[in-house]
Amino acid sequence: MVERCHDIQDLLAEAQAGNRHATARLLSIAEAGGADARRLSRQLPVDLGDTRVAGITGAPGAGKSTLTNACIAEFRSRSLSVAVLAVDPSSPLSGGAILGDRLRMTSNVRDERVLIRSMANRGAMGGLALSVPLAVRLLACLGWQWILVETVGVGQSECDILGISDTCAVVVNPGWGDTIQANKAGLMEIADLFVINKADRPGLADTKRDLQNLIEDSRYEGRRPDIVETIATDAHGIDMFCDSLVAHIQHLESKGLLAARRRNRLADEIVKTARETLIAQLEDVAKQEENKRLFASVGNGTADISTASDGLISALLSRYSNAW
Amino acid sequence: MVERCHDIQDLLAEAQAGNRHATARLLSIAEAGGADARRLSRQLPVDLGDTRVAGITGAPGAGKSTLTNACIAEFRSRSLSVAVLAVDPSSPLSGGAILGDRLRMTSNVRDERVLIRSMANRGAMGGLALSVPLAVRLLACLGWQWILVETVGVGQSECDILGISDTCAVVVNPGWGDTIQANKAGLMEIADLFVINKADRPGLADTKRDLQNLIEDSRYEGRRPDIVETIATDAHGIDMFCDSLVAHIQHLESKGLLAARRRNRLADEIVKTARETLIAQLEDVAKQEENKRLFASVGNGTADISTASDGLISALLSRYSNAW
Repeated sequence: MVERCHDIQDLLAEAQAGNRHATARLLSIAEAGGADARRLSRQLPVDLGDTRVAGITGAPGAGKSTLTNACIAEFRSRSLSVAVLAVDPSSPLSGGAILGDRLRMTSNVRDERVLIRSMANRGAMGGLALSVPLAVRLLACLGWQWILVETVGVGQSECDILGISDTCAVVVNPGWGDTIQANKAGLMEIADLFVINKADRPGLADTKRDLQNLIEDSRYEGRRPDIVETIATDAHGIDMFCDSLVAHIQHLESKGLLAARRRNRLADEIVKTARETLIAQLEDVAKQEENKRLFASVGNGTADISTASDGLISALLSRYSNAW
Repeated sequence: MVERCHDIQDLLAEAQAGNRHATARLLSIAEAGGADARRLSRQLPVDLGDTRVAGITGAPGAGKSTLTNACIAEFRSRSLSVAVLAVDPSSPLSGGAILGDRLRMTSNVRDERVLIRSMANRGAMGGLALSVPLAVRLLACLGWQWILVETVGVGQSECDILGISDTCAVVVNPGWGDTIQANKAGLMEIADLFVINKADRPGLADTKRDLQNLIEDSRYEGRRPDIVETIATDAHGIDMFCDSLVAHIQHLESKGLLAARRRNRLADEIVKTARETLIAQLEDVAKQEENKRLFASVGNGTADISTASDGLISALLSRYSNAW
């Protein structure tokens, strides 16, 4: 799909005029990455303005999709527009199995102020790390009031994705005490608030105490993370959950921390853009015929891996110095 | 942990003499990455010799750990030594939840010709992509006859990890027809053989037919992937599974394809080493005070993300050209 510069401008204008197909095409451009995505990136302001971005994460089975779905209804009842990016960092192998059936979320599709979009790892290295922040900037530019970024907790990709949120909710279930204990540090690094979903299941009190202890132990600086109980399938507690998201962002704003978070995020996007540019160039250099000898030299024992790796970097540098 | 060069040589000598603690320390060095890992890498031959490396992967819950455990017993009954690398590409957030309880595998720990080691993502970008192949080369150098690399199917990291295997088994369960259909391309790219574990569950015949159709449709070049049925909890079918692993590697060897796979893998390790070196340098450059203006320029609207990203790359290049 090649979109020239003025096509992207046209699409943006159409999307801003409310054309959903134009929005969908722009999101596809963001997802696909590459030159068109970079063109789109240049057309978009970096400032998210009044849009609020909430991350919703947790292990498989925690009920993230149902919770997200319930949040859509709650925000809509408050007359706020909601866009959901359901981000699946898994490979084709584990596929849709991790984020579950997206069809569950389609009950709101006829509402013009609701948008639901899955973004998958199309196999490009670091693809989601760049395409998700770009999609968020696009949706903010189009005036969406809330953006919910739902993702499962898997690997580096998740940290990349959650880094783009103003506030981040971690979803757990009753009976997950051991998991919580085992992952203390990671949880506290990510969570701005905790949701105990499926709160009608046995073990609620224990899980609540585990989370309270976790928060206590880690001498949380600033605002203590809320612990909200929900039964997402019945929409129970969803108003409290949305209140908590709003309250955390308001807290950040009142302390001047929201702008700081967003600045960090922008810096992060810049570094990632540079990283992906370098990696793409490196992979290209590695494919060139004249660099094949570097690989052969390791195979036949005349060089070690570090030396060959340095050789590749040299080849990359000379390409840049020729180009500039 | 700082290990000087001769310390690593000492450790290697001790490990080769059969000291398990030395092996464990070397594996920790490989896992931690950084300068010590690079030193270790230079001490190790790139040739894996007669060691065989099998990948075992599949979605969470497929029974990979139990299957791996049963394979250990089977290979031991054939008087072969077995090292297992249980690789968890998940973050601290999802933690041990994905690969399950490693304690299950400890029934063989008193056997000197069995080694079981978990390798987790310690948060370093691309950490496992470099540390797993390094650990494999280490274990091969120490004379382990079989190395089983067990990993869950999640994201880019999995492909990086599976790339290091001579042969790769994908584990599915009866009743996974939809999952298999949905992930055709990804499965066929990865699988050298299929295992239907929990074969006593309903739906075996359907799943078998789904896999057969998948293999048929994809006009598999070369050897058709075996489909093996196992009930790992009862060690049922494990001899067949191990026979299949052996047969596939023998097939590769007889066609000269094993050496080709290993050469590709080595090339891959070289490119990844270059990649990680560049990324580490880039992150360092991004932290430098004089480059802060690049981030500010985007924040205040005087530059776009691409321009700032190019600025970072320039700063990186000038660092290299000063150093070299």
